[in-house]
Amino acid sequence: MALMRDGLVAHVGVDMGSHPVVLPSAYAVDPDGPDEGGTLYLHGSVGAGWIRAGRNTTLCVTVTELDGLVVARSPFHHSMNYRSAVVIGTARVVSDEAERDHALALIIDHMIPGRAATLRASTRKELAATEVLAMGLVEASMKERQGGPGDDPEDVAAGGWAGHVPLRRIAGVPLTAHDAEGEIPVEVADRARALGAG
Amino acid sequence: MALMRDGLVAHVGVDMGSHPVVLPSAYAVDPDGPDEGGTLYLHGSVGAGWIRAGRNTTLCVTVTELDGLVVARSPFHHSMNYRSAVVIGTARVVSDEAERDHALALIIDHMIPGRAATLRASTRKELAATEVLAMGLVEASMKERQGGPGDDPEDVAAGGWAGHVPLRRIAGVPLTAHDAEGEIPVEVADRARALGAG
Repeated sequence: MALMRDGLVAHVGVDMGSHPVVLPSAYAVDPDGPDEGGTLYLHGSVGAGWIRAGRNTTLCVTVTELDGLVVARSPFHHSMNYRSAVVIGTARVVSDEAERDHALALIIDHMIPGRAATLRASTRKELAATEVLAMGLVEASMKERQGGPGDDPEDVAAGGWAGHVPLRRIAGVPLTAHDAEGEIPVEVADRARALGAG
Repeated sequence: MALMRDGLVAHVGVDMGSHPVVLPSAYAVDPDGPDEGGTLYLHGSVGAGWIRAGRNTTLCVTVTELDGLVVARSPFHHSMNYRSAVVIGTARVVSDEAERDHALALIIDHMIPGRAATLRASTRKELAATEVLAMGLVEASMKERQGGPGDDPEDVAAGGWAGHVPLRRIAGVPLTAHDAEGEIPVEVADRARALGAG
């Protein structure tokens, strides 16, 4: 659950008939959502092919955070450090208006906590253009690799360096749009700082 | 192609029969590889379910780099900046020994350029445990979003801040494994520095 909170992009796998398609997507999680194990929300344009293909079918949604490069003595033990969550479930089309509003606010707050409450309401036209899909989190599996390489004893005994290069995501200072002015809102500045902006 | 070079993790979509599965994976690209448009290489354990299901079927391999959070005046125009490449193709099992060696070296050098040439050769046992899949890059589509939000004129006119928070991946200083000693190899130090390590 911590990974689902830390991740920003999910990769959504949809069966397009002759083959799967994998697309990056924003998402949010509601641990107290109406689906078994809590609810994962996705959204997209009602016209998008993957949204239309995904309705009421089994999707796979994967969230991965890359944590490092693992540098071994042997080719075989080179690897990467990461955390990933793989969620498999049937995509339910969210038609209830209150649940849609809630899901869209969660997706914005997942990017920038506290942002949704500062915004005007979505218009009817905006809502009509947006589809929200929901999936239960009951069938979720986590995988994680951390630390240095698992080299074979012979390679360790032969000496030589091994280790890992840590990787993380870092934010820069928020940039004001060319047609905007005013102070950077507190929730945006907080988010950038939480993600390491100087 | 620049994105495929910059990316470190691919998300591989495989049809598992009743639904797709999406898994994170290392990868490498050989622009001069034997497949149409150049070759994308993946590898995995010969026993892995996705490798077995993926042989000679149509896979979707997606590489995404997240570049920022787009902070709009309206809920609707919140978004993320990113670059993504979606490659669809039939997974060819690489059985030629020279091509397998080449592919495995490319995958290591994709993580840490110059590393493969410094390593001992893989053993027969290590090679027998590893399967390499190849796909043509001919059916690849790129998508990109950059910059600030595309808010509606009414929302711009109403005033208020909008912009974006840049995001990037940054490396830390390489960490030596508990059972290793010696100098950090030059290619590892170079890679960490290229990824922003202090």
